[in-house]
Amino acid sequence: IRKRVVLKNGECNVVQSNVAKRRRRYLADIFTTMVDIQWRWTLLIFTASFVLSWLAFAVLWWLIAFTHGDLEPEHLPDNQGASGWKPCVGNIHGFASTFLFSIETQHTIGYGYRYTTEECPEGIFVMCIQSIIGVMIQAFMVGVVFSKLTRPKMRAQTLLFSRSAAICQRDDQLCLMFRVGDMRKSHIIDASIRAQMIQMRVTNEGEMIPYFQYELKVGFDHDESNLFLIWPMTVVHKITPDSPLYNVSASDLLKDKFEIVVILEGTVESTSMTTQARSSYLPSEIKWGHRFEPLVSFRKDTGQYAVDYSLFNNTYEVDTPLCSSRDLDEFKKLR
Amino acid sequence: IRKRVVLKNGECNVVQSNVAKRRRRYLADIFTTMVDIQWRWTLLIFTASFVLSWLAFAVLWWLIAFTHGDLEPEHLPDNQGASGWKPCVGNIHGFASTFLFSIETQHTIGYGYRYTTEECPEGIFVMCIQSIIGVMIQAFMVGVVFSKLTRPKMRAQTLLFSRSAAICQRDDQLCLMFRVGDMRKSHIIDASIRAQMIQMRVTNEGEMIPYFQYELKVGFDHDESNLFLIWPMTVVHKITPDSPLYNVSASDLLKDKFEIVVILEGTVESTSMTTQARSSYLPSEIKWGHRFEPLVSFRKDTGQYAVDYSLFNNTYEVDTPLCSSRDLDEFKKLR
Amino acid sequence: IRKRVVLKNGECNVVQSNVAKRRRRYLADIFTTMVDIQWRWTLLIFTASFVLSWLAFAVLWWLIAFTHGDLEPEHLPDNQGASGWKPCVGNIHGFASTFLFSIETQHTIGYGYRYTTEECPEGIFVMCIQSIIGVMIQAFMVGVVFSKLTRPKMRAQTLLFSRSAAICQRDDQLCLMFRVGDMRKSHIIDASIRAQMIQMRVTNEGEMIPYFQYELKVGFDHDESNLFLIWPMTVVHKITPDSPLYNVSASDLLKDKFEIVVILEGTVESTSMTTQARSSYLPSEIKWGHRFEPLVSFRKDTGQYAVDYSLFNNTYEVDTPLCSSRDLDEFKKLR
Amino acid sequence: IRKRVVLKNGECNVVQSNVAKRRRRYLADIFTTMVDIQWRWTLLIFTASFVLSWLAFAVLWWLIAFTHGDLEPEHLPDNQGASGWKPCVGNIHGFASTFLFSIETQHTIGYGYRYTTEECPEGIFVMCIQSIIGVMIQAFMVGVVFSKLTRPKMRAQTLLFSRSAAICQRDDQLCLMFRVGDMRKSHIIDASIRAQMIQMRVTNEGEMIPYFQYELKVGFDHDESNLFLIWPMTVVHKITPDSPLYNVSASDLLKDKFEIVVILEGTVESTSMTTQARSSYLPSEIKWGHRFEPLVSFRKDTGQYAVDYSLFNNTYEVDTPLCSSRDLDEFKKLR
Ligand SMILES: [K+]
Ligand SMILES: [K+]
Ligand SMILES: [K+]
Ligand SMILES: [K+]
Ligand SMILES: [K+]
Repeated sequence: IRKRVVLKNGECNVVQSNVAKRRRRYLADIFTTMVDIQWRWTLLIFTASFVLSWLAFAVLWWLIAFTHGDLEPEHLPDNQGASGWKPCVGNIHGFASTFLFSIETQHTIGYGYRYTTEECPEGIFVMCIQSIIGVMIQAFMVGVVFSKLTRPKMRAQTLLFSRSAAICQRDDQLCLMFRVGDMRKSHIIDASIRAQMIQMRVTNEGEMIPYFQYELKVGFDHDESNLFLIWPMTVVHKITPDSPLYNVSASDLLKDKFEIVVILEGTVESTSMTTQARSSYLPSEIKWGHRFEPLVSFRKDTGQYAVDYSLFNNTYEVDTPLCSSRDLDEFKKLR
Repeated sequence: IRKRVVLKNGECNVVQSNVAKRRRRYLADIFTTMVDIQWRWTLLIFTASFVLSWLAFAVLWWLIAFTHGDLEPEHLPDNQGASGWKPCVGNIHGFASTFLFSIETQHTIGYGYRYTTEECPEGIFVMCIQSIIGVMIQAFMVGVVFSKLTRPKMRAQTLLFSRSAAICQRDDQLCLMFRVGDMRKSHIIDASIRAQMIQMRVTNEGEMIPYFQYELKVGFDHDESNLFLIWPMTVVHKITPDSPLYNVSASDLLKDKFEIVVILEGTVESTSMTTQARSSYLPSEIKWGHRFEPLVSFRKDTGQYAVDYSLFNNTYEVDTPLCSSRDLDEFKKLR
Repeated sequence: IRKRVVLKNGECNVVQSNVAKRRRRYLADIFTTMVDIQWRWTLLIFTASFVLSWLAFAVLWWLIAFTHGDLEPEHLPDNQGASGWKPCVGNIHGFASTFLFSIETQHTIGYGYRYTTEECPEGIFVMCIQSIIGVMIQAFMVGVVFSKLTRPKMRAQTLLFSRSAAICQRDDQLCLMFRVGDMRKSHIIDASIRAQMIQMRVTNEGEMIPYFQYELKVGFDHDESNLFLIWPMTVVHKITPDSPLYNVSASDLLKDKFEIVVILEGTVESTSMTTQARSSYLPSEIKWGHRFEPLVSFRKDTGQYAVDYSLFNNTYEVDTPLCSSRDLDEFKKLR
Repeated sequence: IRKRVVLKNGECNVVQSNVAKRRRRYLADIFTTMVDIQWRWTLLIFTASFVLSWLAFAVLWWLIAFTHGDLEPEHLPDNQGASGWKPCVGNIHGFASTFLFSIETQHTIGYGYRYTTEECPEGIFVMCIQSIIGVMIQAFMVGVVFSKLTRPKMRAQTLLFSRSAAICQRDDQLCLMFRVGDMRKSHIIDASIRAQMIQMRVTNEGEMIPYFQYELKVGFDHDESNLFLIWPMTVVHKITPDSPLYNVSASDLLKDKFEIVVILEGTVESTSMTTQARSSYLPSEIKWGHRFEPLVSFRKDTGQYAVDYSLFNNTYEVDTPLCSSRDLDEFKKLR
């Protein structure tokens, strides 16, 4: 059976191949690449950037000590009192010492058992460079982690679409309906809803467009697509003459091939970030002659409006013509 | 008496129940959850994340010292000179020492009384891990506190709606009016106003929609809903044939049941964040035959325009027909 | 002479008085308040928050030392060897020491001359509290400074409006024109332009609205108000029958009282923040029978398009009817 | 040959000259200036701000030591035991020492070999000032680097426009088409597409506008300019009577001078930042009588939709009238 384009949870079932200069463009936009990859790779790069820089500077400090002669036996810390030797960095014995000193300096712990002395200008210079680079590495990495944590994509986890859509009449007009909801108490600001029908299209010229995206006008009373998601809302698409569903009847639904992708966009109230929640409906998920059950009620005991989400996906049957909206309009004209 | 859906201060009087997988979805979006919860819980989690991680690493350091033998009597600091013992961490006596060392290392204070030595590779390894995890914990926690502090929801505290709405004529057209204002000197960019009327709706098919949201077209001269909130503005809804208030008369207002929710959305100029201010009007808060008092005047002494907010909610009576807008239009046709 | 509402630089010449609960609401939104105030107050609060917290904890540490007996003569650092005294914090002599220790701990410098010992649980506890509070204070203050630095309001400094507006014909249609420009090479994304005419309005009912904001439809060929500010653009308002300028003639301009406020809104490409630039035109700044000079030319030598900003405000005279747009339309009908 | 206004990669081929008060306005908006400049200058300023502040405070510390007498031979560290001298800062020998102490203090490394004593109030005061200024410098610099890294402009690197545009018929209507695509798996939210035709315009009054920006209405079925970029999309401009291309025939295309600038705007899903991708088409890049090849197919083996980007720019020839859309419409009327 043919798989859907957009999964129920909003994931897109699309893969890309043969993209020219892909690697180069991903690197040009390294930040978005870092935010997009999986957490395990982010954490790995995060850790590696610290450890590798610590190691790199540890090697540098070791070289400074070595070239200055601090690692010769009579110049080691225990013998400095006797020889009167002044090292570049205090209490350095070998690479382990310079590695520790590198961490202590770059991470600004600075225990002080190991410390920079005034003996070597190159030591002071490397200390400056390491301090600056340390701030930069930390800024970039913390920025990536912060951006990854605050991705507004996650807010879509708490936005709901009904499992199925329904077709019934509203004031004699056949309509396609589905439900959207918001689990959180905080809002989605400037929420808008869109729906697109992906279906084969053939033009008069014989052009075959296998996955054409027809726009379905959705809204409420006046086709307003702006939502105030105070409680779950029923989104309505009137099946008027300019709708791609105008010629579709109940029996057509059983054999037609299309996918209705629904998109909810808005700004997360808490963080002022834009988010997008997606879902889709196949013909098999559209219930002809059904209507959604109410789920908002007023509780006299608490004086509050209560939403019962266990009813979110529930529908009940209603008398609905099985013919297409076109046939229905033609029939009305005859009467 | 029936409580309102949206309180005067914008809070929503709605509760949700029976939400499937609620806990799991809240955890998937941990960041928004953290930003949404009350300050006392945020501060508690903030504190706990630091203290618990300090404790965890303190236990680790204690284990390292214990397994290395640093805690045996002849290996303690005061006896290290005599025994020539080299510990993993200098000046560790027991758990209190490792706890202090853990804080000094992770928080990068690094007094240096306690310090890592070159004796134990596992000590250097744990020091690296603790440094990295410390940065991560601090980044996440500071990010949550920063986002919670910068929530644009707070800017709505300084946006005002008039306490009541008014109905009167403007150029022979019955209109519903209310006032919006901005207390701050800095602006709301790209401000837009919306109004929705929550009321029972019954369709031709007998569907009863208990809380249907009718859109009320609001604006000014040309139904422009964009605002430049330079001073308090009177928002106007013309009661034309496509308005749900078209059939409502002054007496109907006394017994009708509905709620007009008003929404002001825009971008905070100072922080570029999107905010939403809400309020609502019940029929009892709509004054038929009233008009808002002017509150902007020009001060010749200072050469500035002055807004007197003590007049913000004031209205005065004007001659207005008590019949519905429909009746008024029919009457006009007869003349 | 009457002062303008919006100054040429976008400042608003409006003051507010008698605002109820002003102080309380400003505190509820402390963050926006902090970002809005002048830099000198921000820096003062920034400095004070650090110094006061250092002082507060210095007093706490002093109390801990005092109550533990660390400040008695035989318990001071120089006599600790002889008396075998173990202090709560090493090398504390008095308040100056505890103040230094407080800074070294909270700011995580941690020289180590003064350090926490294992003697006092209350010392370890205060060290934890000070560390956590130190991070919080720094996070809030750095966040305020960062937000204040990144305010997109400053981007409006490099957006330009022409000093005057012009009225002339374009394809026989009288139009009001003004110019907008962007000094920077980086763009304003999704730029849109709006214009409002502030003027006295009197309704049929006799309501006098002293500063009514009429919307002026602006744009280009098809009244598109979206801009791609690749170079300075001439914004056009067609004086059609639905324009408040329809009845205004050249002589009316000399005595009319109104102000045209122009608003450019968009997203700063570099930071993705929304910004708003404002300016205004008084009747005395509208030149009837003038047209803006071109300022974009193609340089053959460099192969680039050059914008000469010295011509930005320049206009030249053109033959233009001095009558109102209404009279012109009526005249056309007669012919 | 005349160069294009917008390069294929979105760069704008425009330079500006004679801008009044340019330097002053760039400094007023220092933050955007810092984010806009090249990386090498940002890193230079970043480094310089740290090094110069370290040097400035090093001089201050040196002055404190000098005026206190800490640098006299009998007051130097090695002689302090004998003379009983108490310095302002421990272990200071000269400028190298104060420079190291300045770094250790401001960067909060605090090795502790050099430390502030209680001897000098001016030393404690300078330590406070340096700590506060250090936080400010780091906050500003990290903020600039973070903002520069997160610039959403880079996301446009992974947004694609087809190399050429095409003109052919769709349901008997001549259309201009081009293709847009998104290389990344993560989305652009609220994507919208715009097209502008830059061409010479001459009005009835004889005004010559050398680079007028005509708006080309683009979209899909119902001129919807909103995109759901799930896979590469073909953007369509119907050449109807209100299109500036209405009178253009295939032969006109060979000699006409214009440039069609296309703009894709939207919000990056990962970071919630607004981005804008640009490209353009010259008449030589418009293929009359061509149509884009399909590139989306369904893979039965994996159950996924596959996009083959190697076909992204491919077109094939189709029978298309060579006359203008106007001639075609007139011809249809005759039949
Ligand atoms: K030390
Ligand atoms: K530190
Ligand atoms: K330290
Ligand atoms: K430190
Ligand atoms: K130290």
